[in-house]
Amino acid sequence: MTARAQIGVTGLAVMGRNLARNFARHGYTVAVHNRSSAKTQSLIADAGHEGDFVASESMADFVASLERPRKVVIMVKAGAATDAVIDELVPLLEEGDIVVDAGNAHFPDTIRREKALSAKGLHFVGTGVSGGEEGALNGPSIMPGGTRESYASLGPILEDISAKVDGTPCCTYVGPDGAGHFVKMVHNGIEYADMQLIAEAYDLLKQGLGASAAEIGQIFADWNTGDLESFLIEITADVLQHVDAATGSAFVDVVLDQAEQKGTGRWTVQNGLDLGVPITGIAEATFARALSGSVPQREAGRAALPADAGTWEITDRDAFVEDVRLALYASKVVAYSQGFDQIAAASAEYGWDVDRGAMARIWRGGCIIRARFLNRITEAYERDADLPLLLADEYFTDAVSNGLAAWRRVVAQSALNGVPTPAFSSSLAYYDGVRAERLPAALIQAQRDFFGAHTYRRTDREGTFHTEWSADRSEQEA
Amino acid sequence: MTARAQIGVTGLAVMGRNLARNFARHGYTVAVHNRSSAKTQSLIADAGHEGDFVASESMADFVASLERPRKVVIMVKAGAATDAVIDELVPLLEEGDIVVDAGNAHFPDTIRREKALSAKGLHFVGTGVSGGEEGALNGPSIMPGGTRESYASLGPILEDISAKVDGTPCCTYVGPDGAGHFVKMVHNGIEYADMQLIAEAYDLLKQGLGASAAEIGQIFADWNTGDLESFLIEITADVLQHVDAATGSAFVDVVLDQAEQKGTGRWTVQNGLDLGVPITGIAEATFARALSGSVPQREAGRAALPADAGTWEITDRDAFVEDVRLALYASKVVAYSQGFDQIAAASAEYGWDVDRGAMARIWRGGCIIRARFLNRITEAYERDADLPLLLADEYFTDAVSNGLAAWRRVVAQSALNGVPTPAFSSSLAYYDGVRAERLPAALIQAQRDFFGAHTYRRTDREGTFHTEWSADRSEQEA
Repeated sequence: MTARAQIGVTGLAVMGRNLARNFARHGYTVAVHNRSSAKTQSLIADAGHEGDFVASESMADFVASLERPRKVVIMVKAGAATDAVIDELVPLLEEGDIVVDAGNAHFPDTIRREKALSAKGLHFVGTGVSGGEEGALNGPSIMPGGTRESYASLGPILEDISAKVDGTPCCTYVGPDGAGHFVKMVHNGIEYADMQLIAEAYDLLKQGLGASAAEIGQIFADWNTGDLESFLIEITADVLQHVDAATGSAFVDVVLDQAEQKGTGRWTVQNGLDLGVPITGIAEATFARALSGSVPQREAGRAALPADAGTWEITDRDAFVEDVRLALYASKVVAYSQGFDQIAAASAEYGWDVDRGAMARIWRGGCIIRARFLNRITEAYERDADLPLLLADEYFTDAVSNGLAAWRRVVAQSALNGVPTPAFSSSLAYYDGVRAERLPAALIQAQRDFFGAHTYRRTDREGTFHTEWSADRSEQEA
Repeated sequence: MTARAQIGVTGLAVMGRNLARNFARHGYTVAVHNRSSAKTQSLIADAGHEGDFVASESMADFVASLERPRKVVIMVKAGAATDAVIDELVPLLEEGDIVVDAGNAHFPDTIRREKALSAKGLHFVGTGVSGGEEGALNGPSIMPGGTRESYASLGPILEDISAKVDGTPCCTYVGPDGAGHFVKMVHNGIEYADMQLIAEAYDLLKQGLGASAAEIGQIFADWNTGDLESFLIEITADVLQHVDAATGSAFVDVVLDQAEQKGTGRWTVQNGLDLGVPITGIAEATFARALSGSVPQREAGRAALPADAGTWEITDRDAFVEDVRLALYASKVVAYSQGFDQIAAASAEYGWDVDRGAMARIWRGGCIIRARFLNRITEAYERDADLPLLLADEYFTDAVSNGLAAWRRVVAQSALNGVPTPAFSSSLAYYDGVRAERLPAALIQAQRDFFGAHTYRRTDREGTFHTEWSADRSEQEA
């Protein structure tokens, strides 16, 4: 076996297969391997003509077919399967080789694996890959973690196969150990929020206007020519205009309204709680999916709970559509602002030094949340790399202010007319909270001191205090 | 050393000290021990006359002073300190002895410890104790987990020292291993939601009416004579009417508006995410505290973000106060409904068989969320022990329906006037979501199938389907 492949892929289900084809199409000699050889044979049979593949049946041959330092991309199910492949692979590798986990690992697992492999002189690169099957084949957004040293040899290959926007690759070095998978996780969390906001906008247009799915699809198609231009808005327009062949109804109307999830939204919110970063848009989106799937609760609720919401009459249809558009854009900015805050907090907590502007740049193409407005986020961090609040960047402040009255009207109308808009409402509450001169949290601190002697701080001087509530109510420095 | 103490307490900081005094005041001979003996001596000096204490300097003497089966209550910091005490204690114990962890352990730790100790023939009881220092001394709400066998001998003692409501002890057997600490965790999560809702009501009255803290305190005092009657409403009235001696201002106005937390709200929400139970009220309350403490974000937000909320004019003051009261009650019912759903889901997931009605009963006294309306929850589960949604019980449906129009008005006014009410809004969105005939989650499932081939189900027939979006758009059974 001649060591002539420049990169290898093990795990040839659709994502791994498409990544391998992408490498081959870019002129790399690609070693390929799968636990059962049927998938390897099928790849060679179907796509062997696309480039130079070296197929191996055993892991040992696969490793032997790679040039040093070896670069092995693992694309298997996150969790135990990933550990099993790593355990099989590691004894066959030599110092300086690079193991790339391109699956959807939870970042603490990546931190653990990086530590174990670096102790053996190997590089371990946990990398986010976004864009689904199509992205893997034609250019995903790639978020690699690990050492800078590994990026020096691996990075150019990943940049080569990534999506390009204005000639710039949608791939850059993210940061040490778990940083790549972390950023991918937050990407997915933002995706949850973005999808929920779109779903709420659709519901408002449906219930407010009594519009058909196709009509609403046309509205989304119009929106896709402006600030909202993005992959998700584009496919929403497409999906809403799709007709179900079996029934002749709008497709979306025959789909069961129970949204599923695969865990990254949940991880994102759990981490936001650990870091104390209020990512309420992502939380509401994640819980909205959970609520949609709470079948016994919804059955009981439908049977028992009245709407008591009056009749909703919209007199100016175009004005309402524009209000919803502005509310959607403002809420979306809040969701991204919260997500980028979370990246900043994690970067500080785990010592990663992640460049937030660069993350927005590599999300402009290839991935699910690719959008025109990500350029604006990159620009905001170019203006101030340490921006504490994306919302407070001049561009976003203007964009949100412009739609603020509309946003308020939409949230108020939802409440009055019984349309559930948890993400719209929560985003507005966050906006009003983060700009508030004074929050009622002071009362909460006072209550905590009353019942639990948890102490409080004062507005007028330094220190920590406790009031003797059950005695003479004197104040003591704690 | 004669083995004559019926129960022992190790860890004599204020909670342990007060529990020990509570046991002694109820006629039990109480063994007491602390790592450093100063705390033990101080307890005997200050409270020795209250009952029969047996003080020991060493853990060995402490254990030797207890009647068999020994009952040892550990009241130390959750985490490593608890494990250290267990490790020191266990070799001194004999089969059938009962170790009680009365600290604020995270329930997965309790599950782990129970497993380890039961393997050694010991009983391990993780128990929630709520009520703070005062409750520990005069009667807390107690939520013990562990084996039914251990409850047979330990339970009567705990019931004895617990709070009583209408002669019924606020203590009952909760369920195996981690059940007691789990229920205490959800209790605290509900407490977060309750406190945030009260804080939002206060903020609305302050901003809507321009009322002083003392005036709002009087409104809360009035509310405490009706459905809202509870410890938290009572202390809110008290705190709001308290005047700061140093400045002569209302106390709440000099407290820094950054709420702190000790972790149980976060744990509750993280578990809700794991179980897929939408506990949005607790989540918004937890994140509202995080937002209040996000100092750089708030500074940037205050400086940059406009309110653009117009002038708020309330013409009928009494009607507005009544609207806020009804909105508070309805939102509170949602928070409790979500929390009890979470207990049901956990009970099923971990095999605990928790009686939800009994939990409401033991929260009626001693604990922070003690309230008149908990009787109504017990009654609801007496009507239907498997009630899938507390909101759908006839009493709560009526109670919420009665305030529904007011609730909608309050949430709408908050949005229009720039008052952040994340928990009020989120609770209403949950109400409208759980009663919705159709949710826009169908669009989310369609999008997921479009970009990730995640498949969907249909409303009109069984099965799982995928549409070939990038080919001929035919539908296939997946």
